[in-house]
Amino acid sequence: MRVAHRLDDIARQVDAQLVGDADCIISSISVLQDAEPGSISFLSNRKYRKYLKTTKASAVVLGPEFLDDCPTNALVSDNPYLTFAKAAQLMTVSPAKRAGRHLSAIVAPSAQIDISASIGPGAVIEDNAVIGARVGIGAGCVIGEGCQIGDDSRLVANVTLCHEVTIGQRVLIHPGAVIGSDGFGLANDDGRWVKVPQLGSVSIGDDVEIGANTTIDRGAIKDTVIEDGVKLDNQIQIAHNVKIGAHTAIAACVGVAGSTRIGKHCTLAGGVGVVGHLDIADNVHFSAQTLVTRSFSEPGYFSGNLPAVPNSVWRKTIARIRQLEETTQRVKRLEKQCRQAHCDKTDQDD
Amino acid sequence: MRVAHRLDDIARQVDAQLVGDADCIISSISVLQDAEPGSISFLSNRKYRKYLKTTKASAVVLGPEFLDDCPTNALVSDNPYLTFAKAAQLMTVSPAKRAGRHLSAIVAPSAQIDISASIGPGAVIEDNAVIGARVGIGAGCVIGEGCQIGDDSRLVANVTLCHEVTIGQRVLIHPGAVIGSDGFGLANDDGRWVKVPQLGSVSIGDDVEIGANTTIDRGAIKDTVIEDGVKLDNQIQIAHNVKIGAHTAIAACVGVAGSTRIGKHCTLAGGVGVVGHLDIADNVHFSAQTLVTRSFSEPGYFSGNLPAVPNSVWRKTIARIRQLEETTQRVKRLEKQCRQAHCDKTDQDD
Amino acid sequence: MRVAHRLDDIARQVDAQLVGDADCIISSISVLQDAEPGSISFLSNRKYRKYLKTTKASAVVLGPEFLDDCPTNALVSDNPYLTFAKAAQLMTVSPAKRAGRHLSAIVAPSAQIDISASIGPGAVIEDNAVIGARVGIGAGCVIGEGCQIGDDSRLVANVTLCHEVTIGQRVLIHPGAVIGSDGFGLANDDGRWVKVPQLGSVSIGDDVEIGANTTIDRGAIKDTVIEDGVKLDNQIQIAHNVKIGAHTAIAACVGVAGSTRIGKHCTLAGGVGVVGHLDIADNVHFSAQTLVTRSFSEPGYFSGNLPAVPNSVWRKTIARIRQLEETTQRVKRLEKQCRQAHCDKTDQDD
Repeated sequence: MRVAHRLDDIARQVDAQLVGDADCIISSISVLQDAEPGSISFLSNRKYRKYLKTTKASAVVLGPEFLDDCPTNALVSDNPYLTFAKAAQLMTVSPAKRAGRHLSAIVAPSAQIDISASIGPGAVIEDNAVIGARVGIGAGCVIGEGCQIGDDSRLVANVTLCHEVTIGQRVLIHPGAVIGSDGFGLANDDGRWVKVPQLGSVSIGDDVEIGANTTIDRGAIKDTVIEDGVKLDNQIQIAHNVKIGAHTAIAACVGVAGSTRIGKHCTLAGGVGVVGHLDIADNVHFSAQTLVTRSFSEPGYFSGNLPAVPNSVWRKTIARIRQLEETTQRVKRLEKQCRQAHCDKTDQDD
Repeated sequence: MRVAHRLDDIARQVDAQLVGDADCIISSISVLQDAEPGSISFLSNRKYRKYLKTTKASAVVLGPEFLDDCPTNALVSDNPYLTFAKAAQLMTVSPAKRAGRHLSAIVAPSAQIDISASIGPGAVIEDNAVIGARVGIGAGCVIGEGCQIGDDSRLVANVTLCHEVTIGQRVLIHPGAVIGSDGFGLANDDGRWVKVPQLGSVSIGDDVEIGANTTIDRGAIKDTVIEDGVKLDNQIQIAHNVKIGAHTAIAACVGVAGSTRIGKHCTLAGGVGVVGHLDIADNVHFSAQTLVTRSFSEPGYFSGNLPAVPNSVWRKTIARIRQLEETTQRVKRLEKQCRQAHCDKTDQDD
Repeated sequence: MRVAHRLDDIARQVDAQLVGDADCIISSISVLQDAEPGSISFLSNRKYRKYLKTTKASAVVLGPEFLDDCPTNALVSDNPYLTFAKAAQLMTVSPAKRAGRHLSAIVAPSAQIDISASIGPGAVIEDNAVIGARVGIGAGCVIGEGCQIGDDSRLVANVTLCHEVTIGQRVLIHPGAVIGSDGFGLANDDGRWVKVPQLGSVSIGDDVEIGANTTIDRGAIKDTVIEDGVKLDNQIQIAHNVKIGAHTAIAACVGVAGSTRIGKHCTLAGGVGVVGHLDIADNVHFSAQTLVTRSFSEPGYFSGNLPAVPNSVWRKTIARIRQLEETTQRVKRLEKQCRQAHCDKTDQDD
């Protein structure tokens, strides 16, 4: 649901500089290229700059460097994406879920559910679970025995919490996420795998967001820990005993193997893989599809991926990579020949 | 359920050339190496050619180049895999789901459900959802508020549609798929992440297939769009604002990051990663595990992956790759030395 | 639930050598660095050796090489991780699920359910399913028509089995797993994709473990097969017609494409991708994020991944990789020049 605002009201609340008509009424949100009058848009990625001059939006959030090209009212900000985020939050009101349990919800008598919480159709709450104030448990969610969910958290639908998982406040968990499944602990007994009981659990801090179909395994002995403010995209795999530091953001399709610790304020781009038992410092950043095989003790930006090129070119490149050892040896031989030729000090010609 | 057919009847319906006994009755489908009499098989991948001569199938769909080796009746086709697909469809009848709602289904009074639709056990249909004719909603599916599902579509089981998702006709969605979860929109506010409301939705065209545990996020402002005839395998992640062009097929474990547009008739092999804000033209093809970091404006086949080799070889190769900058510099120095040797035409000095 | 044991009793049952106080009572399990008196810990990864000398555990399972540094009672073993696994199993008792159906479970009248099985809240059992003795079907699971589940298997919660899937005994399946979804079988008809009916199913052996949100597609004609003792981590994709040999272990985020056969006792580390129609022998091992594009007929350890380095270094490396063809040609020219210089018979020696 959108709520209309005067532009100067928006500017004041998001702390941006208004250039233009303070009385303009903004009632919707748009992208630059398809904007309609009455909407607010934004420009933060230079790739979309080409759409600014012809936008029909009634206001645009942008950085000062684009102000001259803006054909309409502007909200100027040094961090236009953040300013836009705040404006969009201001203009969007999620209809509150009605408190109470849907008749079809299945709630164990021993569960403690705050009277202001909403339990959706077909949701299952097992023994001794504790559900805080204003929590929303969507349709089809399963909350295992002894789980605790802090105030104002929301599990959208079909989320599974295994037993004794702890969730902080204001946590948002998208459909299909699984939290507290057994870690992949196996000992090899002469060719057969013996299961190592997974006796820890998962502890999720406050203000965490967890994407659709993301999985977070329980610890083997102690808990797997996701600290406050961590944001996890879809289809991420967090193995047992991992610790993710506060305010780290991880994009989709990342896998973090067991017992690795990732610092605070890190970013992992899509498809990154991190092997087990590593220590990654705060403020470390990895680019898409990078494989992380060692600890990093200093902040920095690290990569190891090979972008796509035409297949015909790539086939030659692979062949040359396969010959690299040989090629390097050939260079060494040439250097030796040249050195000897020089040392010999006899003239030679081509 | 299989349905028996005369071979000439099959040939006619799938438009293949019959070589052999028109009266032969075909009642099952088999692979070449384990075929039993009465079954039809096919040969399209040359790797399986070795099984042709000894097959016990009563008929084989194959290309003309294999006809001489065929020990039984043949259906000759220039596209044997397609011909086989049609024959298998002809011989397979899915038992129709009974129309109506299972007693345990939980349907909001405001939802509009066609009388011919089937709503399975424990399925949840939320407010104002619209379900078309002959739609099948399997056990445990959750259909969010205001979703629309076109005629003859089928959601197998435990599928989650978040609010206001639109699904076309004849769409098939496999278990665990999540459509319409929030995009990963975050603005950084001095180290903390601020959520950007995700106000768009997802629009799925006709004749789309979506694999198990695949996730498709809703758009930030406008819809994420999957056009007609797109086929998505399992565990694919489609981020917000992405557009996938008609008749593109994407294999398992692919991730496409936000706001990227992929053209029509593309193929992405398994494990491909595509970064955000790119434009990929029609008829572009990427091989397995390729990372796509730039736009491609022309059709073509692109790669960037490194196939497995023995680890001992690979360790040397990595070391040489790490020295590539140095090795290239050494080659330059050698070239300079050789040039000087030539230019000096007499003795030279280093 | 933990069960207290005398240390000599544990030693005897896990077949380890006790060094220290046989009467010591062990009542909990800990990691070395946070151990409390009364607990047992273990040391198997050398990275954690630094915590041994100061541990407060009352006993430590370790290899003989660490015995001298152990400040407390020891259980000495040549495979300390296995010995610890057995000790932890000994000390952990899972409370038995009550046999019987939860009132909210939805069970087709034609399903055959052993009286000792437990069917959880909201679970759906469809027509003609057969559920063995002491099987646990957790909340929200969907068991499709005609599935068979062997004795003592457990589906934790929200697991989906499509129709006619066969599961062996003592199989453990974690939440969100989908077994028996359609394989990605498509034939191209002049730009449009035609579905190939997926007529096989999935056959899972005994003692298999399947991780959260893992997907296993049904075969096109015959079954996809997972043999006894296979262990699959989270978010793995197994395509149609694949066969995984007994006692193979696959880490998270691996994808195996259609019709590939993987041998027994293999290990695939996280993020590995295996293309279709390959044959991988027994005892083959792939390191993390390796792409497998050809068959391997001999045991061995194979790799093809590029570990992360600083991005500034990596950008130069990529540039040099792109020039590899040219660089190799330059080396060839240099060699030719040097050879000619030699042939010219001015003296130089090699």
